Amino acid sequence: MNYKVITISREFGSGGRTIGRKVAQELNIPCYDSELIQKIATESGFSPEYIQEASEYSPSGFLSAAFSNRAFGPSNEDYLWNLQYKVIQDLASQGPCVIVGRCADFILKDTTECLKVFVHASLKFRSKRILEVYGQREQSIEQRIKDKDKRRSAYHRFYTNMKWGHAQNYDICLDSGRLGINCCVQTIIHLYNNNEQPQ
Amino acid sequence: MNYKVITISREFGSGGRTIGRKVAQELNIPCYDSELIQKIATESGFSPEYIQEASEYSPSGFLSAAFSNRAFGPSNEDYLWNLQYKVIQDLASQGPCVIVGRCADFILKDTTECLKVFVHASLKFRSKRILEVYGQREQSIEQRIKDKDKRRSAYHRFYTNMKWGHAQNYDICLDSGRLGINCCVQTIIHLYNNNEQPQ
Repeated sequence: MNYKVITISREFGSGGRTIGRKVAQELNIPCYDSELIQKIATESGFSPEYIQEASEYSPSGFLSAAFSNRAFGPSNEDYLWNLQYKVIQDLASQGPCVIVGRCADFILKDTTECLKVFVHASLKFRSKRILEVYGQREQSIEQRIKDKDKRRSAYHRFYTNMKWGHAQNYDICLDSGRLGINCCVQTIIHLYNNNEQPQ
Repeated sequence: MNYKVITISREFGSGGRTIGRKVAQELNIPCYDSELIQKIATESGFSPEYIQEASEYSPSGFLSAAFSNRAFGPSNEDYLWNLQYKVIQDLASQGPCVIVGRCADFILKDTTECLKVFVHASLKFRSKRILEVYGQREQSIEQRIKDKDKRRSAYHRFYTNMKWGHAQNYDICLDSGRLGINCCVQTIIHLYNNNEQPQ
C-alpha cells in the first residue's frame, strides 16, 4: 500500500513531534505542526496563541467554553475546527507530508491514503523528556502531563467521537520510550515504503 | 534493546497467530500457541479441550463460573491460571521464543525482556479471513468475532487488570488488515533486531 500522508497523534512528551520531523526530513517531504497553527491564524485573523489555546494545548477553559456557548450557535472553537479541517485537507491534497496532531487522521479518513501513527510512552520516560525539552515550570511535570493528555483526549473525543489512544484507531502504535526515538522513525519509514497490498 | 521473547496478543481473525508463526520461523526460534494448551493439559491432567474452553476460547460459561465458584476457594480456572503462569515463565526462561496469547505479556512483565505486540484489524478484514481460515459455522461471523473478542478482553481484564487493546499496554500495535500480514512480520523482526537503547 502506498501512503501519501503520515499523521502522528501522540501523548505529551512522547517525542511524537520529533519523530514526525525526523521522518519528514528522511523522506524529504514537508512536516506540518506549528505551521498549521500559523496557517489557521493567517486565515482566521485569530492570534496563533489563541488558536493554540483553543485546541489541544489549552491550559484551561477551552472545554467548558466549548460546551457552554454552543447553545447560542457555533462557537469560536467550532469555527476554528472547520478552518482546521479545510487547511489540513488542502495541505494533504498538495502531496505527501507528515501532519502532527490536530486530529488529522480523522479529518483525512475519507479522502486521503494515510499511515495513521500513535506515539506513546511511560510516564517516567515522558517526565524525563519534558524536563529536558521544555524545562521546569511552576506546575509539576506529572500534573502537566495529566492536564495535556486529558485535554488532547477530550478534544479528540469531542470532535471525532473516537477514543484517543485506542489501538484500533491507528495503523501502528509505538512506545517511543521502549523502542527509542530513532527506531520509531525507521519503523515508520519502513512502513511508508511498504508496498504490500492488504488482502 | 535486545528482546528475548516476543508476546503477541491479537483480535480474533486478525492473523496474529500466523504472524507469530512466521516471525518465529524467520528468527529460527520456537513459537508457542496450541503447544501451550498441550503442555498445561499434560501438567494438569485436564483435557486440552477443557483448557481451551476455560480461557479465552470459551464458547460460554467460563466467566460466570469464574465469578460464581470463587467464594468456595480457588476455582479450576484459578488453578489453570497459576499453571499457565508457571508454564509460560518456564518456557521464557529457556531462551528466545514467540508466545501467542494467554496473557504472556503480563505474566512475563517483571522477569523477561519482551517485545509486546498487539495485532488488530477491521471487522471487514477479520470476517473475510475467518471465513477463509475457519469456514462457515452456524453462528454468524460477526457474532463469533464479537463473542471471542469479548471473552479474550474479559479474561485479560480479570486476571491482569489491564485493558486489552489499549495502545499503552504494548510496545507496538499493528493493523494487519491495513499493513498486510507479511509487513507486520517484517516490522516485528526489524524491531526484534533493533539495538537502540531507549533514553
